[in-house]
Amino acid sequence: MSNLPEVQQLKLEESVPTENGSTSVEEDVVDPWTVTSSSDAGIDYDKLIKRFGSSHIDASLIERLEKVAGKPVHHLIRRGIFFSHRDLHTLLNAVEAGKKFYLYTGRGPSSDSMHLGHLVPFIVTKWLQEAFNVPLVIQLTDDEKTLWKDLTVEQSMRMARENAKDIIAIGFDPEKTFIFSNLEFMGQCPQFYQNIIRIQKCVTFNQVKGIFGFGDSDVIGKIGFPAAQAAPAFSTTFPFIFGNDKLPVLIPCAIDQDPYFRMTRDVSPRLGFPKPALIHSSFFPALQGARTKMSASDTNSAVFLTDTEKQIKTKINKHAFSGGRPTLEEHRELGGNTDVDVSFQLLRFFLEDDAELERIRVQYSKGELLSGEMKKIAIETLQPIVAEHQRRRKNVTEEVLKLFLTPRKLNYEFTIASPDTGNGSSGDGKKKGKDKKAAKQK
Amino acid sequence: MSNLPEVQQLKLEESVPTENGSTSVEEDVVDPWTVTSSSDAGIDYDKLIKRFGSSHIDASLIERLEKVAGKPVHHLIRRGIFFSHRDLHTLLNAVEAGKKFYLYTGRGPSSDSMHLGHLVPFIVTKWLQEAFNVPLVIQLTDDEKTLWKDLTVEQSMRMARENAKDIIAIGFDPEKTFIFSNLEFMGQCPQFYQNIIRIQKCVTFNQVKGIFGFGDSDVIGKIGFPAAQAAPAFSTTFPFIFGNDKLPVLIPCAIDQDPYFRMTRDVSPRLGFPKPALIHSSFFPALQGARTKMSASDTNSAVFLTDTEKQIKTKINKHAFSGGRPTLEEHRELGGNTDVDVSFQLLRFFLEDDAELERIRVQYSKGELLSGEMKKIAIETLQPIVAEHQRRRKNVTEEVLKLFLTPRKLNYEFTIASPDTGNGSSGDGKKKGKDKKAAKQK
Repeated sequence: MSNLPEVQQLKLEESVPTENGSTSVEEDVVDPWTVTSSSDAGIDYDKLIKRFGSSHIDASLIERLEKVAGKPVHHLIRRGIFFSHRDLHTLLNAVEAGKKFYLYTGRGPSSDSMHLGHLVPFIVTKWLQEAFNVPLVIQLTDDEKTLWKDLTVEQSMRMARENAKDIIAIGFDPEKTFIFSNLEFMGQCPQFYQNIIRIQKCVTFNQVKGIFGFGDSDVIGKIGFPAAQAAPAFSTTFPFIFGNDKLPVLIPCAIDQDPYFRMTRDVSPRLGFPKPALIHSSFFPALQGARTKMSASDTNSAVFLTDTEKQIKTKINKHAFSGGRPTLEEHRELGGNTDVDVSFQLLRFFLEDDAELERIRVQYSKGELLSGEMKKIAIETLQPIVAEHQRRRKNVTEEVLKLFLTPRKLNYEFTIASPDTGNGSSGDGKKKGKDKKAAKQK
Repeated sequence: MSNLPEVQQLKLEESVPTENGSTSVEEDVVDPWTVTSSSDAGIDYDKLIKRFGSSHIDASLIERLEKVAGKPVHHLIRRGIFFSHRDLHTLLNAVEAGKKFYLYTGRGPSSDSMHLGHLVPFIVTKWLQEAFNVPLVIQLTDDEKTLWKDLTVEQSMRMARENAKDIIAIGFDPEKTFIFSNLEFMGQCPQFYQNIIRIQKCVTFNQVKGIFGFGDSDVIGKIGFPAAQAAPAFSTTFPFIFGNDKLPVLIPCAIDQDPYFRMTRDVSPRLGFPKPALIHSSFFPALQGARTKMSASDTNSAVFLTDTEKQIKTKINKHAFSGGRPTLEEHRELGGNTDVDVSFQLLRFFLEDDAELERIRVQYSKGELLSGEMKKIAIETLQPIVAEHQRRRKNVTEEVLKLFLTPRKLNYEFTIASPDTGNGSSGDGKKKGKDKKAAKQK
């Protein structure tokens, strides 16, 4: 790791040569609120890794991950959709030394219904949870959405609960998973606010200005919010799960969330915590093409988890940007471009069979497979996935929801130190376990 | 009320003529963190009222207050120690129309022991609570102290609990009084954080820069904190007491806290609440003189509630700034100056008998009473007050403390609407009362 602070302002515009040799202003904008690219192939992720100062997930890291996990990695990792990381080697060192960690991911609930792209970090998180048998905390930033969007506290909280049902439907184990909305959980656990204050004491306005681009006319809620997204990366935010243990954490997230965790990683050592490790996913393209990501606020840009079979068919047929040629003749002769073809990109995310995916790629590139046929494969791949999700979501009763949202002890077998007696609060979850190694991390 | 926003930056320096006719730069600094004056008589409060845009508590307002309260006002009000107000007439109109209100005051716990000056707002708050038979909420801003001082979360929380014991010892009725520390209560009541987010959505960095003088190098915790002090002025922060009622509030406080409530009063109408009414006290002078206020961080500047009889005697004899003349002869001939004599000022705050106080003032001004004698009277007045406080504080057991700090229904007989069902939290304290008038305020 470089010793330079990770919170330097990132310049996201630079002059670059285009493919045909001329020079244009390439403007990939990637921050927690905006993701846009001027290229049909989407964000230049190699450049982004350089700008953000993270590291590539390369073949040797994947090999190591498979060795430690004891099974092949998920295809979203294998295919490079999770492409970047911070300190994953350090985390794997700890795991190999017999130490445990926990997983933290989240979502900003800005709509009642989630779309396919929202599933991506959760799918890999679930794979990691099962591979390493570790606890998971999932944050719903309904406070953020109230502050940034034209949404009341009540609206954001309702969306958080609806989104939680979709997340539960992905199949997380209630024995190992705690889901929380900030606007609720803040009032259930004093340690959450206490950690926020500790973090907010370490970060100046100048720093959040540099990291997030905040200005003087921004509301003070936005300025303070990054600490609320940072706090779950500190295990003492969840005394009912971890007691006072200061555990390592791995955060799977889309790379636009990295600024929050660059800030977190700067604060961690000052509060006596290990820096969080991260793995970053690329963006799920909008149906209209990879210049933007799927957006819940633009119905036609996304396949929603509530869409019917017919809606999926219509949306993809009508809106999915094609990498095919203008005429049948040209397509047969020159072949299609899978790099920009949104239907093919959807298959990269959701078609599990590697051989089948490669067959489709080759056939399309050769012009043997037509755009309409590509769309049909995408439709037929997504329809059962969405239908199955809907079936599982129906089983998420209010009771199941309440279980996941209740602060409680998880099925987690490591030593948990007693919380400080001085704070007079939440004495839940104190437990002496068996594994003495974890205690040494403190 | 003026329609100008109350949040304009206040210029606290201006060039003024001195007593002897020359001109000097008079620098009264009054903000929540600093109170200093270049005059031995202390802050020029008339000028402060003009700068802050508040109103004098004049004879006719005191008369009205006595009429509505049905008894003589407390001597701290009668003697002009509470000298300024905002919207007290509006509040009294509401009371006369049969509506209820609640009281809100607080303290920043920066030391384990409180001093005499800290009692002042609480004494008047107690008088108001008894005169109007209304509920009272008392905030301990341990989060603020962590952010501003070299104190950990744990240290501030411990001080909050110690200070709560002193506040309870003043004699508040547990049936009508809720005391809370922010670092604890935030984790007990989701509505507190929800109101903070609502407030933080209404206030920009530019505004807090103007009101509090925050700068780019301030930590983000400071920038967001004013919302935590504003939130208790919104009755829905306490659903277990007020349900969803949006009740008027009266805030007794030292005038250095006014910036927080100017901000609050700007936000109130946007959130559908009445603007809080305020009454402001002047500052309790340091023993060394009225250029600064008593400070808990300077042991010799203050009489602490933990001081022994002997310590009080020594401190006043040694440190209390005297308005007497340099020699006995001069004093007998010209008389002493009660305006700057700290012992006399202490008597203004704590000697209840008006006739006796006036007798002392006249005798000292005439030179009949000597400085040593004045100090003796002050010592003998304060010793039993502090001893009585210590006796009462001994009776504040952990059990009593816990009672006051527990979010609970208070003995409050007005209609309380049901909290929103949408938020899924704290269903405590729902109660339908008898008085239908209060419901109309919503």
